[in-house]
Amino acid sequence: MKYSLFGESHGPAIGIVIEDIPSGIYLDQDFIQSQMDRRAPGRTPLSTERKESDKPKILSGIYNNKTTGTPLCAVFSNDDKHSEDYEDLKYIPRPSHADYTGWIRYRGYNDFRGGGHFSGRLTAPLVFAGSIARLQLMKKKIFVNSYISSIHGIRNPKEQEIENQIAEAERAGDSIGGCIACKITGFPSAIGAPDIGKNIEGEIARAMFAIPAVKGIQFGAGFEFANMLGSEANDGFKVNEENVNVIETITNNSGGINGGISNGMPITFELVFRPTPSISIPQKSVNLKTMQNCEIKIKGRHDPCVAYRAVPVVDAMAGIVILTFLQEAMGYDT
Amino acid sequence: MKYSLFGESHGPAIGIVIEDIPSGIYLDQDFIQSQMDRRAPGRTPLSTERKESDKPKILSGIYNNKTTGTPLCAVFSNDDKHSEDYEDLKYIPRPSHADYTGWIRYRGYNDFRGGGHFSGRLTAPLVFAGSIARLQLMKKKIFVNSYISSIHGIRNPKEQEIENQIAEAERAGDSIGGCIACKITGFPSAIGAPDIGKNIEGEIARAMFAIPAVKGIQFGAGFEFANMLGSEANDGFKVNEENVNVIETITNNSGGINGGISNGMPITFELVFRPTPSISIPQKSVNLKTMQNCEIKIKGRHDPCVAYRAVPVVDAMAGIVILTFLQEAMGYDT
Amino acid sequence: MKYSLFGESHGPAIGIVIEDIPSGIYLDQDFIQSQMDRRAPGRTPLSTERKESDKPKILSGIYNNKTTGTPLCAVFSNDDKHSEDYEDLKYIPRPSHADYTGWIRYRGYNDFRGGGHFSGRLTAPLVFAGSIARLQLMKKKIFVNSYISSIHGIRNPKEQEIENQIAEAERAGDSIGGCIACKITGFPSAIGAPDIGKNIEGEIARAMFAIPAVKGIQFGAGFEFANMLGSEANDGFKVNEENVNVIETITNNSGGINGGISNGMPITFELVFRPTPSISIPQKSVNLKTMQNCEIKIKGRHDPCVAYRAVPVVDAMAGIVILTFLQEAMGYDT
Amino acid sequence: MKYSLFGESHGPAIGIVIEDIPSGIYLDQDFIQSQMDRRAPGRTPLSTERKESDKPKILSGIYNNKTTGTPLCAVFSNDDKHSEDYEDLKYIPRPSHADYTGWIRYRGYNDFRGGGHFSGRLTAPLVFAGSIARLQLMKKKIFVNSYISSIHGIRNPKEQEIENQIAEAERAGDSIGGCIACKITGFPSAIGAPDIGKNIEGEIARAMFAIPAVKGIQFGAGFEFANMLGSEANDGFKVNEENVNVIETITNNSGGINGGISNGMPITFELVFRPTPSISIPQKSVNLKTMQNCEIKIKGRHDPCVAYRAVPVVDAMAGIVILTFLQEAMGYDT
Repeated sequence: MKYSLFGESHGPAIGIVIEDIPSGIYLDQDFIQSQMDRRAPGRTPLSTERKESDKPKILSGIYNNKTTGTPLCAVFSNDDKHSEDYEDLKYIPRPSHADYTGWIRYRGYNDFRGGGHFSGRLTAPLVFAGSIARLQLMKKKIFVNSYISSIHGIRNPKEQEIENQIAEAERAGDSIGGCIACKITGFPSAIGAPDIGKNIEGEIARAMFAIPAVKGIQFGAGFEFANMLGSEANDGFKVNEENVNVIETITNNSGGINGGISNGMPITFELVFRPTPSISIPQKSVNLKTMQNCEIKIKGRHDPCVAYRAVPVVDAMAGIVILTFLQEAMGYDT
Repeated sequence: MKYSLFGESHGPAIGIVIEDIPSGIYLDQDFIQSQMDRRAPGRTPLSTERKESDKPKILSGIYNNKTTGTPLCAVFSNDDKHSEDYEDLKYIPRPSHADYTGWIRYRGYNDFRGGGHFSGRLTAPLVFAGSIARLQLMKKKIFVNSYISSIHGIRNPKEQEIENQIAEAERAGDSIGGCIACKITGFPSAIGAPDIGKNIEGEIARAMFAIPAVKGIQFGAGFEFANMLGSEANDGFKVNEENVNVIETITNNSGGINGGISNGMPITFELVFRPTPSISIPQKSVNLKTMQNCEIKIKGRHDPCVAYRAVPVVDAMAGIVILTFLQEAMGYDT
Repeated sequence: MKYSLFGESHGPAIGIVIEDIPSGIYLDQDFIQSQMDRRAPGRTPLSTERKESDKPKILSGIYNNKTTGTPLCAVFSNDDKHSEDYEDLKYIPRPSHADYTGWIRYRGYNDFRGGGHFSGRLTAPLVFAGSIARLQLMKKKIFVNSYISSIHGIRNPKEQEIENQIAEAERAGDSIGGCIACKITGFPSAIGAPDIGKNIEGEIARAMFAIPAVKGIQFGAGFEFANMLGSEANDGFKVNEENVNVIETITNNSGGINGGISNGMPITFELVFRPTPSISIPQKSVNLKTMQNCEIKIKGRHDPCVAYRAVPVVDAMAGIVILTFLQEAMGYDT
Repeated sequence: MKYSLFGESHGPAIGIVIEDIPSGIYLDQDFIQSQMDRRAPGRTPLSTERKESDKPKILSGIYNNKTTGTPLCAVFSNDDKHSEDYEDLKYIPRPSHADYTGWIRYRGYNDFRGGGHFSGRLTAPLVFAGSIARLQLMKKKIFVNSYISSIHGIRNPKEQEIENQIAEAERAGDSIGGCIACKITGFPSAIGAPDIGKNIEGEIARAMFAIPAVKGIQFGAGFEFANMLGSEANDGFKVNEENVNVIETITNNSGGINGGISNGMPITFELVFRPTPSISIPQKSVNLKTMQNCEIKIKGRHDPCVAYRAVPVVDAMAGIVILTFLQEAMGYDT
C-alpha cells in the first residue's frame, strides 16, 4: 500500500491516491467518518475555527462500496478559504514554518497561501487512507491506538489538563508542543528485516516524519535506554502461560521489535510534535523581497497545539505502514 | 547512492555493494582507514577483543584508485571467529537480541552464529561506504561530525567519564546505553521535500534505524519541544551580517530542516543506542526446541557500550544519506 | 517525474498525480490541448463515438499557471457513459481483453464496466502529464515525434491508406493492429547506465508496456538485427563535420543507445499494438457464473485500431521517461 | 527478489548480491552448475576461448547449503585476463559497443578493459542468481525454457545450422544476430496489474534489456499483431476439458498475459540479440584523444554470436522476475 498526497491549502482541492490496496475491503462509513471527525477542525473550542470540508469524494478504486484493488483516489474540496489572510505573508516567511524552505526549494513557484502543500490540512486524506488500512487490519484483530502522552511538559495528561494547557496558550497568542504515543496490538511476529528499507522501525519512522511538526520518534524505552543498564533494558523471554507454543517477553522495552523484526509483543513508539509555528506574538523575520530584517505578526486561525489533532493522523499512518508490511510478508491481498 | 549490505558474522566474508556513486572520487586511503579504525574493535581496552579484519578488499567500481561510477563492491573477510562460543545459543535466544526474531523470520534457516546478518560487524562496510560519500562531500565543504552526547545518564560526558562508565559496566558483566549527536555543516539549503520518501528527516531516520541498537532519533530540540511554547521554539530569521544575500535563523531548534527541506543551518539530530543486549549476567530465556523456560548466561566477547563504537557509523550513514539528497537535487555526478 | 494513474471507465472520474515535476513549467494550454485533441475520440469518423470529456481539471501543483513543483493532480470527469452496454459482459469475459484477468486478479471486486481501470480512456491523463514533460523538454530543444509506421501489414502507410484500412475493419465489425515508431531528437549523450532500472531501453520499454495493447518494442534496427552481420549492424564513428568536438555515428542501427546509455544520436524505437480486442463478430467465451462455454457478441462503441489514437500517448510516455532520466542526471529542477 | 550486479571484466572479481530471497532454498549444485556450464565460454569451438572461472564463491546468505533469507553474495574471480589486448582500445571506441558511452557517462573514469562493467561476463552471476530462483519455482512446478528461435535469418534453426552459421561468421571475422524465445509454464493466473511497475510484460521487458545486446522484445504474437485482424488475434475462452473449474484460451496469441496480468496460459516472449559488436573486420572509429577519424581492427577473443550463449541468461532473468511477482502476490517466502 503506497500513497501520493496532493494539494495545496488554498487550491481547488486536496486528496490522495492509494495504490496496492487489497481488493474487497468494505468501506465502513461510520468508522471512516469517526476518524475524519477526530481530526477535523472546529469540533471543539480548542482547535482552529476554519470549517473545512472533511467529506471525501471518492473518484476511483471503489465499486459497490468495496475496494476494487485498483488505485483509489479521494478528494476533499477546499472551502472556507481566507486567502487574504496570507497576502501579507508572501515575502515574509513565518519562523519555523516551511514558508522559507518552500520558497527556496520551489524557486518561488510554490503556492504559499495557507502553507500550500505543507499545510496540516493534507492530513485529512491521510486519515482517510489510514482508516481503510485499519479496516483491513481490524479483520485480522490488529489494532492501532494512539493518544496524547505529553503536553507542554505534563506527562500522561488528563483530558482536562490538555484543554487547560491549550486554552492558556491560545489566550497568550502562543502555542505548545506535545507527544503522541502509539501502541499496535495483534501484529504478528516474524515480519520485517534488519536491512535498510525493510526494518519496521525505519519504515515507521520514515512515514511519521511525513506528518507535519513531527521532530522525533522513539521505540519502546526510547531515549530512556541512554540511562539504563543492559540488565535493566533487556526483555527476558518466557513461555506464554495459556499457550505453551507462544513465546513472549517479560518486559517490552524493545517496543515489540528486535533487529527490525516484530517479536509478537505490542509495537510501541512515541512521537514529539513541535509547538504550532503560527503564533500571534510578534516574531523576527526577513522580507524576502527587500532582504531587510523585519517583524511578523501572524493573523488567521491556527491550532495552538498541533499534537492534539494529530492523534488520528498517527493512527492512520501507523495503519498504512503495518498493513504494507503484512502485504509484503503474506501477499498483496492480505 | 544506494547500498546493499551482505554477510554473516561467522560466514566467509561480509561486504557492501554501493550503486549510483559519482565517478571520479579519489579514494583517500588515510581518511578511509582512519574511519575504519575509529570503528574497529580491539583498539582500546574498552571494546570487544575480537581481532577483526577491517581491511576492505575492493572487488569492483575502482580504477586507478578512483571510483568508476559503476557498482563498487568491498569485502571484509571474517577471521578470528569463535563459532563454538555460539553453539549453545542455537536454541536459546539472547534477550533483546535478534536471535529470536531472526529465527522466526527466516524460519530457522538463518545463520545464528555471532548474530549472523544482525551482527554489529556489518557496520564495518557501512563505515567504508560512508567514508567515500564523505570524501565527496568534503570537496563541497560539507562536513559530518558525530560524538557521544550521553552515556548511561551522563549528558555531554568527557572521554574519561565515558571510559569509566564502560569499564564499570564491563566489570559488572553488564552493559550501558548512550546517545550520539550528529551535526552536518555546509549542507546547502533548498534540498528535500515534505512528502514521504523525500523529506530529509524521514530519510535520515530510516537510514539510522538500520544501524543495530538505535531505538530513537530526534532533530533539533527534539523531544524537548514537548515542553516548549511556540514563542520559545520558533527560530526567527535574520539577514546574515557578513553576507546580506543570505538568510539565517537566530536559533536552530529546527535542526536545519523545515517541512522536510534544508534551510541552510546545520542539520542536527541525536540518536539513542540501547545497551548491548549481550551481558554475562544470567537472564531468562526459552529453549526453542523444548519450549521450556530456562536461563542463559552469555559467553564470548562483547562491547559493553555499542554507542561508543557507533560514532563513525553514524558519520558514515549521515554521509550516505545527504550525498544522495545532493545527487537528486543536482545530478548523479554531484 | 513519477505518476499514479487512477480511475475506472465508468466511475465518477479518472486522473493522474504527477510527482517530482520541475517547478516553474508554464502550462501552454494550446500545446496541451492540441495533444489531448490528437488522442480524443469522436474527432474523426474513424474513432469511437463516445463523447469523452478531455478537459482536465487541475486540482493541485499549479499556481499562476506554472507548476509549483509539488504533486500535480488532474482529473477528467466521466460523462456520456453507457454502462448498460456492459451489463451483459459481467460474467462473460471478452476474448483478449483484461475482463477475465481483472476479474481473477481482483477477486471479483473490480469495476468491470467499460473495461474499468484497464480502459484506454486512462491514456487521456497520461497525454496530459506527458505534455507537461514535453513542454520542459522543448525548452532544451528535445523533441519527441511518433507516427504510425505500420497498419494491418502496410509499412509506412499514407494517411489515406490508414483511413481505408480502419474503415474496412469497421465495416466488417473487426479490428486491426499496427505499429508506432518514435524518434527522440536532441537528447544529450552520456545519460543512463547498463544496470537494471537505470538503462534507457529498459525504462522506456517498461513504461510503454503500461500503454494498453502494446505487445512488443524494438530499438534501432530491432528484430532486423537477427538477420544481420556485425559488419552490417555496427554503427561506425566519425567526427561531426561542423563541430569537431562532437562524435556521431555514421548509421544509427543502435537507436541512439549503447550499453543502456545515450550516445547523442536520435533515440528510435517502434512499438506494436495488437488489434482492438473488442469486435462485433461473435467469439467464443465462458460464462464465469455457470462455467459453461458460450458465445459473445460485443456491443458498444470501439475503435477498430487502437494504434491510431495511441500516437500522442507514445509521445507523452516517451516524454515522461526521458525527462526523468534528465532529472536524475542533472537534478530535479532540470 | 532484487539483485545488484557488480564487477568489471578485468578487475579482481565480478559478482552479485541478491536480496529478498526466500529462506530455505536448497542449493542443488548440479542444477546450478549445469546452468553455469551452459553459459560458460570455451565449452564448444563456437564460443570465446577465454577460460573464465565460472565457479561462484558464496560469501553470505547460505547456511548448511540452504538460503538463509538474508542477502546472498556470490563472487567469481577474474582469471585468464588478457588486459594487454585492450590497451590499444583505450581511446578508440569499438563501434556499437559501450566503450564510447561508458567513457562519456563516467567521465573517463570507467575501467574500459574488456568492456569493463559492460562485459558479457557479468551474465555469469546472473545465471547463478536465476538458478536459485528457478530452483524455488520448480518446487511449484513452474518451468522456464528458452531456446534459439532465429539465427542470422534462419527461423527455428536446428543445432547443426546454428553451428554452421556461427562457424561461418567466425571464419569471416564477422558476427551474427539471433533471437531467443522463452516459454514459462505453470505460472499461476491472476498475478500482475496494468499499472506501470506492476505489469508482467513491462517488468520482464525491463529486466531483459539489462542483458547486453538485447534490442527488442515481443510477447505472444508480438510484431505479427501488426498484420492481424482482431478476429485472428483474439484468444477465445473455453472450459478446460479435464478440469471444468479451469478456464483456458483456445489460442495463446496474448502470450499468457492480458492487461499486464497472467491468464494461466504459458507466458511466451521472444528477444532479439544484435550481432556481437566485436568483429575483426576493420571499422571506422574516432580517436577520443586526438578527435581524429581513424580505423579500428579489434583483436582478442570474442563470441561471434552473443545470442548463442545467452540462452541460460534469459532463463535466469525470467526466473528472477517471475519469482518476484509470485512473492509480491503470495508473500516473500513463497
